[in-house]
Order: sequence, then structure tokens, then C-alpha cells
Amino acid sequence: MIRYDFSKRNGQPLYEYLYDCLKKDILSGHLPSGTKLPSKREFARENHISVKTVMNAYEQLLVEGYLYSEEKRGYFVAEVEIMPEYRSELAEYPAVYEGETWFADFTVNNTAYEKFPFTQWRKIMREVLSEYDVELVQRAHFQGIKELRVAIAEYLYRTRKMLVSPECIIIGAGIEYLYNRLMKILPPDAIYAVENPGSKKIPRIYEEFGVRWTYIQMDENGINMESLREKGADVVQVSPEHSYPLGTVMTVARRQELLEWCSEKMERYIVEDDYDCEFRYNSRMIPTLYSMDSNHRVIYMNTFSKTLAPSLRISYMILPEKLMRRYLDSATFYSNTASTCEQYALAKFIERKYFERHVSRLKKHYSAQRNLLIQIIREAKHLPVKEISGVDCGTHLLVWLDTNLGDIELKWMAKQRGIHIECLSEFCEEMEPMYQHVMILNYSELNETALREAIRRLEEIFCFLEM
Amino acid sequence: MIRYDFSKRNGQPLYEYLYDCLKKDILSGHLPSGTKLPSKREFARENHISVKTVMNAYEQLLVEGYLYSEEKRGYFVAEVEIMPEYRSELAEYPAVYEGETWFADFTVNNTAYEKFPFTQWRKIMREVLSEYDVELVQRAHFQGIKELRVAIAEYLYRTRKMLVSPECIIIGAGIEYLYNRLMKILPPDAIYAVENPGSKKIPRIYEEFGVRWTYIQMDENGINMESLREKGADVVQVSPEHSYPLGTVMTVARRQELLEWCSEKMERYIVEDDYDCEFRYNSRMIPTLYSMDSNHRVIYMNTFSKTLAPSLRISYMILPEKLMRRYLDSATFYSNTASTCEQYALAKFIERKYFERHVSRLKKHYSAQRNLLIQIIREAKHLPVKEISGVDCGTHLLVWLDTNLGDIELKWMAKQRGIHIECLSEFCEEMEPMYQHVMILNYSELNETALREAIRRLEEIFCFLEM
Repeated sequence: MIRYDFSKRNGQPLYEYLYDCLKKDILSGHLPSGTKLPSKREFARENHISVKTVMNAYEQLLVEGYLYSEEKRGYFVAEVEIMPEYRSELAEYPAVYEGETWFADFTVNNTAYEKFPFTQWRKIMREVLSEYDVELVQRAHFQGIKELRVAIAEYLYRTRKMLVSPECIIIGAGIEYLYNRLMKILPPDAIYAVENPGSKKIPRIYEEFGVRWTYIQMDENGINMESLREKGADVVQVSPEHSYPLGTVMTVARRQELLEWCSEKMERYIVEDDYDCEFRYNSRMIPTLYSMDSNHRVIYMNTFSKTLAPSLRISYMILPEKLMRRYLDSATFYSNTASTCEQYALAKFIERKYFERHVSRLKKHYSAQRNLLIQIIREAKHLPVKEISGVDCGTHLLVWLDTNLGDIELKWMAKQRGIHIECLSEFCEEMEPMYQHVMILNYSELNETALREAIRRLEEIFCFLEM
Repeated sequence: MIRYDFSKRNGQPLYEYLYDCLKKDILSGHLPSGTKLPSKREFARENHISVKTVMNAYEQLLVEGYLYSEEKRGYFVAEVEIMPEYRSELAEYPAVYEGETWFADFTVNNTAYEKFPFTQWRKIMREVLSEYDVELVQRAHFQGIKELRVAIAEYLYRTRKMLVSPECIIIGAGIEYLYNRLMKILPPDAIYAVENPGSKKIPRIYEEFGVRWTYIQMDENGINMESLREKGADVVQVSPEHSYPLGTVMTVARRQELLEWCSEKMERYIVEDDYDCEFRYNSRMIPTLYSMDSNHRVIYMNTFSKTLAPSLRISYMILPEKLMRRYLDSATFYSNTASTCEQYALAKFIERKYFERHVSRLKKHYSAQRNLLIQIIREAKHLPVKEISGVDCGTHLLVWLDTNLGDIELKWMAKQRGIHIECLSEFCEEMEPMYQHVMILNYSELNETALREAIRRLEEIFCFLEM
């Protein structure tokens, strides 16, 4: 007869303790397969527990396949292999990923956290939590909540003179996610193109998606049209307002050429990533390709990660109507990925013009930071600066150096000093001499002390070389 | 000389108004390309505005490419094509997508909204908003915030006896998103497999991803091993706790066979979707494949969309360490997609055991609803019910009908009556006779009145046929 010591169960329910004991004995081989278990009544009597307890334990083991039953004959141990035992506590193994720590990281393109409008945002979030009820838990519209799409459409009309229907806006948790959704509705055999020099992220998305893609040379007016035609591209990704990292503004004439190129062939598209457009310091924003397009070939994208907070996973894309219809065929199947609560909050935040005021405060802040950084660089006598460029927009600038030091050595020597930089050459298809010796400095997250010390340390590299 | 009427500018800044006027004239052809503009000084005098105003407008037009300048000669109109004019208000075109409305929708697998713990959730969200500061705006860890990963690991240990390191948990905005991330790190030539009958969603994800995939027959113990070997699958998706839609529980022996199959070859994996595991009514939950696996081949997935709210875009997957390392190579590049604020709130919600209490309340509610639905179906005398199955777990059940009515007609006749149902045959690879005439009823969102009326309407179909 099987007997267990129920005093050891430490407050565990009886049937659960019994279940554990039996399972342990089955898995350890103490109760080999085919063993007939005592009847419930018998077992209960021998162990001074109720029949109900035994029944519950048997039933559970039956459902899980540790036992099988035969009519009128009773319960038998099933054939199971021996399982490793549960370890008794959570494994405390070290972090698999450990990021590096830097004194100053010029590669991060985030926001100035301390400028985040905490008071307004908290107030609005609290309002949303009080005002809304079931809307906060229901599955949101797959394009994102209507209120936010309307607020974005109105904002784009006010600030960018863009005429957009809220019905063509798709909200998503980040630009990468939206790219993934977009690429599903573009022709599978399309050749994608990206600016050279250009974003590192876009080629990576193309690679991950497994599409054919190519680099297109940049010239001083934007993406080069000859290069575009030569490479046979179908879908081209551009940031006409402010290319990354060069900071080139695409001229109106080039924009028109690009739209013209699009209309020459079916299924040619432009993806307009309008990131950073809010931070133009010296002049007004330029009309978007989306606004200039009359052929429904421009997909417009932007994000609130850069203007509000990187933690706010709310980005959007605007599809031309034709693509929108194509999107609908697959989209209702996908749930919207952005937080509903934050979507309601952001809608209010935009409606009340808090967003515009926040952007304008940020712009002032970044502009001052940019001036400061330029001044610090100019004052750094040992830094062999040839030119500072890309300063009119965004939150980074380019420092062109007059040096023989290779980019890899430069980065390494900066790293030794706790400074993380990227060089322009990393954003190019090939190591072109004209794009060598150019540091890219993102300054949005760094304060004056950090900027001064970081530039001093970069200067030190060249002092050291001069010695 | 060009003259504009500045009294019409309606409070617009002078330079902006001037910019608009000039641009309009350039685009309309009033100022043809090559036209030399008056000097800034001259223009200012003639229009009674300041030189600064003219300079700002000229500069903006220059940046945008509407003008070009020649040293010492002045400003000229550039060659630009004529642009369509902005329409004056937001286009009000109708919704591109309009969902259908139903009296009762038995196909939606959401939650009972009214059971959402609003008071606790609001309280915790408010706490998070007050307590946290910069953490709420900073870019979160790409795997999701640590607090939540620890809370999930502890929860799984308490309730599922799973031993999981928080370092191997990845938080994401929904299961579809996580699948996309996962498939990127599995071998590109792998053959994926899905249960037959099984989820409609998984084949769709496979199709969208463009991988090879196949159906695997189910038997009464779970996925059929012969079928799995025969089809040459490498990665198999299962819900051993409760397959959808059949509701089959995979026995321990079959689980061991499946793990054995995995270990026979490198790069074989099991994706264990443990959705609905929380709603098991008649017995305790069964150990997961993840816990039983000693070869690092099981990827575990679950979501809070079903247990808390579909609007809460927080799901997670747990990778075996080997895959976690592979994931890290690409993952730091992707931002975490779930809302940071809601991640902090959910972490607290789980830590304080609110989540377990909520699940147990929900389970009680669904269990009562299930009993009610079974009772209503039994009482519906005209409904030719052969069997009701799949009732032990989850929030749906299967009604096997004794009828000649085809599934398509049945669905259509239900639709005529405002009732949305799906039939088992829709979840199968082929129209197998054994899976005909089975309705799948998801009941989580419907109250008693709706359930009674919906079943009455379904009954009506058969009354109508009998006439």
C-alpha cells in the first residue's frame, strides 16, 4: 500500500500534495508503468484522507496522462519518461545582454528627457483614466483610435499644410513595425532603395524582410535621379526635409523630379520619413512629398518617439487611398499595437495644442544646445575642424576633420575615453574618401557639462597625436 | 515691381505671408522661371515692410528651391513645375473600412469587459504616473522593463511551476509581433507546422512571412506524431494545454514524444502557445512543454490580451538560452514595442497578486457562463445537438450538430439573423466529413440575455428547416 506523510505538506491543499507525491513517484520510477493504484476508497482509508481528495488527485493525473483508467478495473500508471526535477528556486543567471556604458554617447538620437511635459502629460493621463471606461479595455480599431487619427490629421493640416483623411492614417508601435506592415502590401519583387549615405536602420529592415534593395547616391539637392534610374529601384525611402546623416534638404525641383519618376511606372512608390521635421531652426518647413503628390504614390511616416518620448511607442503612416484599400485586406486580422490609453492621451495632448507648444519649447532648447556645441567645437583649438555641417535641422551635426587618423582608430580612441561616436563612413555603401573623417554628433540627450567634457576628451585624442 | 496687399494676411506673420504670395505666383506661372526678383531693400521699400521680412521670405524660398541666387546678381525664380493647390479644408471622405455589426458575435475571443478590475488598474496607473519620472519617457530595455519580466517569471513559478529567468523573457505588443521577431531567428529554410484543425491566425502569419508550412493531424492525445514525422516539419506550433478550436489536452506521454522528436535533430523547435491556460475549470493546469524540456527547444508564449484586456498590448515569449543569444544579435536594434507606463503598471498588478485574483474571478465568471450556455443549448429543443465538447478550458465550446445543412448555409442563415458563428470545418486543411456540422461558440463577451436570444435565433434556423 502507498502511504504518504501528509504532515509535510506545508499548507498545500491535500489533493495537490497527493498529486505531487504520486507524480514524483511515477516520474522517479518508484511507481512503474502498468502499476495498478489502490481504489480511491482504499487509498483514502489507509492515508486518513477523504475519498474526494484521492479522486481529485487521480483525476488530475488522468487528465495529464500520468494515469490511465480501465472500466471496472481501476487506475493504472501510464508509460511516461523520467522528467528532470524542478529546481527549487528561480535560476539567477546573469543578464544575457549587457549594454556598454559611456561617459557621453553621441550616437543616441533620443529626446531631452528633462524637457518632457510631465505635468501636462500626467494630468491628461489621469483624465483619460477617469473619463474613459470600457473604451480602455476594448480592442481598439486596427488603424488606431479615431480620436488620435483625427488629431494627427488636424495637426498636419495646421503645421504642415497637409491634407490627410484620418481614414488613411495607421497608428503603430514604432516605425519598424509600420515598415513591416507596409512591405507586406508592396509588390514582393520590388527593388527597394535607400539614400547613400543614409540610415543604417532601413537597410537592416530590408535585409530582415528579405527584399532586394540598393543604395542610391545623394547629391546636394537630395537623392540623385540618374543613380535612381540606373539601379532600377521601385520603392525609394527618403527624408526630404532632412536626410540622415548628411542633413540635405531636397529641393522642390528634385521633389518634383522624384514624383515624376514615380508616375512613369505602375507600382513605384516613395516612402517619406519625415522624422525630425519639427526641428528646423532657420526657416519654415518645406511642403512634404505627400502633399505634392497627385498620383497616390507617397507613403508618409512620422513618430512621436522623437518629439515626445522614446518610451511612447506611437508612430504613424499615411497611405495613399489605393494602398489603403490593399492594406485593409490583411489589416483587420492584425490588432493595433499601440497602447489604447496612451492613444487617447496623445489625442487630447495634440487637440489642446500642448504638443505644438512642447515642440516649440524643445526646438528652442535644441537650438541653444546646437549653438553651444558649435561654440565648444570652435573653441577646441586642437580639434582639426574643417567644417561643421548639417546644423539647420534635427538634433545632430557633422564635424568634418582635417586628419590622417582613420575612422576606425578615431572611434576606438574615443571609446578609450568613454565617448561613443559614429562616423559618416559607417552610413555609406562603400568607404568613399569624400565621406572619411567626419564625426556625427547627436546632442539631444547631453547637457552642457557633458558636451564640454566630451569635446575636451575628443580634443585630447589629437593633442596626443601631435605629441 | 511686385506688390502684395499685406492687409489680407489675417494675423499671419509678415514674412510667412510674403513667402506664400511669392510661392503662389511662382507655382501659378505669374513669376516664370528665370525672373529676377527685386533686391531685398527695393522690395521692402515698395511694400512698406522691413528688409528683414523680405530676407526671411527669400531665404525660405531659397532653401526650398523655389529661388536660386547668384553672387552679386541677386535672386532668381527657379524652374519648378506647377503644383496642385491645397484644398481649403480636410477632405471628408467616408470610412474606407466599415466592420459589420452583429446581434451576437460568437467568433470574437475577447474578454468580459465588465469584469475588468477598473478600480485597481486606475489606482496602479495613477501610482505609476506619480512614482516614476524619467523612467516613463526613456527608451525601455528592448526586452521590456525588468520589473515586469521579474513579475512574470515569479508568476509563472507560482502558478505554473515554471522556472524561467527574467533574462529570457521578451515583452512585445502582441503575439503576432513576437512571432515575427521569433521567425527571424529560426532557420530560414525550416518547415513550420500547425495543428489540423487549428488556429487560423498561425497559417496566416506563416503565409505573410513567406515560410514553408504544413498542417499536422490532431488525434485524441494531441498532435499526431506520425503525421509530424511524415511531413518533415522542423518547427511546430502547439497549444498543449488547450488546442484551438478542438480543446484537446496533450497527454504527458505525447508531450514527451514531442520533446523526443525535437531532440532527434538540430534546429527542431516547439512553439508552445499557452493562451487560455488560466481558464481550466475541472482540474489543475498541466506542466508546460517548456518546463519539461531539457534541450532548450521550446519557445513559450502567452498574452495578457485575453486575461486582462485586448487593448493592453502586452504579450511575452520565453526563449531557450541558445535562441536568446541569437535574438540578441538582432534585437538591440529593435525598440521594445509595448507601452512603458503600462508595463510598470502591469508589473505592480502582478506583484500584488491582483492578477491572480482577477484571473480567478474571471474563471468563476466564465465557468458560470459556460454552464449557462450548455444549459440553454440543451433546452433548445429544435437545435439538433449531438454533443457539446471542448468545455473544460477556455471560453469557447463546440456544438456538434446532427443535420444535413452544410456549414456555409448554416453560417449564412445565422448571419441573416444577426448571429456570427464559425464552424470547425473552417479551421481544417480540407473539408473532412468528421469535422462538418460543428459550431464554435466563443462566449466570453456575451451576457445571459444575448446568449439566450442568440441560441433562440440559431434554433429558429432548424425550426424553419423542419417546416
